Amino acid sequence: MEKTMEKIVALAKGRGFVYPGSEIYGGLANTWDYGNLGVELKNNVKKAWWQKFIMENPYNVGVDCAILMNPQTWVASGHLGSFSDPLMDCKECHERFRADKVIEDFAADKGIVLDGSIDGWSQEMMKNFIEDHHIPCPSCGKHNFTDIRQFNLMFKTFQGVTEDAKNTVYLRPETAQGIFVNFKNVQRTSRKKIPFGIGQIGKSFRNEITPGNFTFRTREFEQMELEFFCEPDTDLEWFAYWKQFCIDWLKSLGMKEDEMRVRDHEKEELSFYSKATTDIEFLFPFGWGELWGIADRTDYDLSQHQNVSGQDLTYFDDQKNVRYVPYVIEPSLGADRVVLAFLCAAYDEEEIGEGDVRTVLHFHPALAPVKIGVLPLSKKLGEGALKIYEQLSKKYNCEYDDRGNIGKRYRRQDEIGTPFCVTYDFDSETDGCVTVRFRDSMEQERVAIDSLDAFFAKKLAF
Amino acid sequence: MEKTMEKIVALAKGRGFVYPGSEIYGGLANTWDYGNLGVELKNNVKKAWWQKFIMENPYNVGVDCAILMNPQTWVASGHLGSFSDPLMDCKECHERFRADKVIEDFAADKGIVLDGSIDGWSQEMMKNFIEDHHIPCPSCGKHNFTDIRQFNLMFKTFQGVTEDAKNTVYLRPETAQGIFVNFKNVQRTSRKKIPFGIGQIGKSFRNEITPGNFTFRTREFEQMELEFFCEPDTDLEWFAYWKQFCIDWLKSLGMKEDEMRVRDHEKEELSFYSKATTDIEFLFPFGWGELWGIADRTDYDLSQHQNVSGQDLTYFDDQKNVRYVPYVIEPSLGADRVVLAFLCAAYDEEEIGEGDVRTVLHFHPALAPVKIGVLPLSKKLGEGALKIYEQLSKKYNCEYDDRGNIGKRYRRQDEIGTPFCVTYDFDSETDGCVTVRFRDSMEQERVAIDSLDAFFAKKLAF
Repeated sequence: MEKTMEKIVALAKGRGFVYPGSEIYGGLANTWDYGNLGVELKNNVKKAWWQKFIMENPYNVGVDCAILMNPQTWVASGHLGSFSDPLMDCKECHERFRADKVIEDFAADKGIVLDGSIDGWSQEMMKNFIEDHHIPCPSCGKHNFTDIRQFNLMFKTFQGVTEDAKNTVYLRPETAQGIFVNFKNVQRTSRKKIPFGIGQIGKSFRNEITPGNFTFRTREFEQMELEFFCEPDTDLEWFAYWKQFCIDWLKSLGMKEDEMRVRDHEKEELSFYSKATTDIEFLFPFGWGELWGIADRTDYDLSQHQNVSGQDLTYFDDQKNVRYVPYVIEPSLGADRVVLAFLCAAYDEEEIGEGDVRTVLHFHPALAPVKIGVLPLSKKLGEGALKIYEQLSKKYNCEYDDRGNIGKRYRRQDEIGTPFCVTYDFDSETDGCVTVRFRDSMEQERVAIDSLDAFFAKKLAF
Repeated sequence: MEKTMEKIVALAKGRGFVYPGSEIYGGLANTWDYGNLGVELKNNVKKAWWQKFIMENPYNVGVDCAILMNPQTWVASGHLGSFSDPLMDCKECHERFRADKVIEDFAADKGIVLDGSIDGWSQEMMKNFIEDHHIPCPSCGKHNFTDIRQFNLMFKTFQGVTEDAKNTVYLRPETAQGIFVNFKNVQRTSRKKIPFGIGQIGKSFRNEITPGNFTFRTREFEQMELEFFCEPDTDLEWFAYWKQFCIDWLKSLGMKEDEMRVRDHEKEELSFYSKATTDIEFLFPFGWGELWGIADRTDYDLSQHQNVSGQDLTYFDDQKNVRYVPYVIEPSLGADRVVLAFLCAAYDEEEIGEGDVRTVLHFHPALAPVKIGVLPLSKKLGEGALKIYEQLSKKYNCEYDDRGNIGKRYRRQDEIGTPFCVTYDFDSETDGCVTVRFRDSMEQERVAIDSLDAFFAKKLAF
């Protein structure tokens, strides 16, 4: 079975996971809408993150900050100054390119080893490299580029009546800064002592030049970020702790070792303020892609905000009698990306004998959009089956389906990843039992209706 | 006890419900961040809505659509053409005003009855009225206004590299339109037959001239919207059904009759396409404010999208063999507003004898940010108490507190609205029981540790 993005995108659209955004109007460059199953899948992923990173974790609390922030935030974070791509146009064919990508692609193609990461290059270095190597336009092949200029990736808008600099605000490019500016507020109101963390789930926006690969890279996306504040010199220990915690979280939701890889950044790759950074990557049908960036950001963020705001963002440890700017470990996960990863990981086409093939999504039960399909064997059995549906719907997202033969109904539930089906048959009317059918093994078990609550509470615990 | 916004805003900030946004930079005009308790309260409200409107409801499914949509959406919805405020400046003092508000305030002040709702007035009518009545500037008292001009309330941004008309996109001013453009997609993938509904929770943005009243009116806000599609001529029945459903939902979460009122719009107030509209209002400390707008929008929305997109948005009823554009009932609730309403409703200062007063938030248990406070009577009892905390944290958001005397700890939990406290004392070590203390009655009950799961499952069912 070849697992391709085409198949996954088609299933996503066909079954209500993800539709193209604004589709009746021809879409809007790589925006996507989560459908009736996609919203449940995504909510389950967010819930599983919140549960393990915030609710059950004794160190952490959450926040939910505004998308629109005071622009000084982006002065302090560096986004106004340097969150930009180097762009240039071809004067002949009028295509637009990222200069760094043109150089990287050219170098890879010609087997040229670049001197360190191109992220550190100045515009002039890029311009000289393109001229020295006589790099042609990737589109038309000619040699007539404009100068390189920096294009800031933040979306800009205007708050208030006039469209001028005074009213310019930005859609946040990351959820992290809402946490940093509230460090003191949260520490005060939660009465946490260091070490502790603050987590946030929310939308961020980046005006990417080349979004793509379905929901992997989009201009509007959702993040699940934790900023964990610790004492200087304990940061590398906590970095190791959270790195393992993230890996364990993915595994606990069924991600397999051979689909994941952990890539520690080399010294040269690190941002100047970072002591350590690791990417957790997933093997998508289009190749390895980053899910989670875990970074030891030292005291960079709080120091920057302290400098720009003039506010005291130090922490006083009253047991050790020391005052310091806390160090930060940041595990930052893309919600849309990890949803896509779970969807890709779940997808399977299985031969189930006699040349028959079923499409099945092997979601972890905690992630499955529909937990239980309730299926009366015959439409005549609706009354008893509906009672079970109503009872289970109070706890789980369930689907009631009385259309078509039972085999086809099982296949449909397989295709949307429903881990359990409850079939109410003619015997159920007298013996008070139903058949529970398991998605992965396709085995069946007779269970008393009275004990269904306890049965599923155990099966669906996470 | 006088319940004032000042007290509620102070408690919200002091206890971690709501902080001013970007506070260390002096804020950003009426933006707010939900703190460590506020995020839990808001998530609980959203969860309770999703549970009753989507999960348990046999008619409805959910979606989660992009904030950035194809601009044609706003042509069809009318937002590009007419979602605007009539603004004018005073040329003397340079203050800016909404002309309609100036007229309304003037008329109310002078006891002039306006001819119908001002929403239907043209700019010229407003200008003439101001001149005829010689209305002065509310700020400086002079008579030198600019012309009135329309100011569109949508936030505008640019997607892509150039800031031109071709790249102009808008932050959605409502979540409803994402549902309408996906009507066919969701109907197909959910295999729902009419009547059915599609719900969505998400951020919307309106460039309000005068946001205010804490989180009641903000430029960035969250909506919980349902669009319910039904057969023409059944719409008024469904309108009545959803109106009652919304009232029942508020009541089920503890909102009292005397804090709510239901205001049916008069014929003259209705939008031209609406057959019926009702507002559910809540009595805030600053007066009555709209929480929920429930509207019979007829086939207006789908017809508009059908016209502008050229796509077929009809529904075919294969049992009755008829094809039609569905009618829509829209119950639209502001998440931030209803969170604020629940916070105001919960707030109380109670005399509890001997001149002692406690501040308490009487949240419904389903909404309380912290469900259970786990309190060891002495720090020496940490081991046993922590075990209980870990066990309960797997199911509920709990707080562990071992600081200060037990009476003060109860008061602190009262002030953040925790419905139950579990006190682990020296007897617990031998008798295997703990004391459960109830927030509202302040009564206490001895409960076996083994049966705590079942005890709270019952108390916290919703």
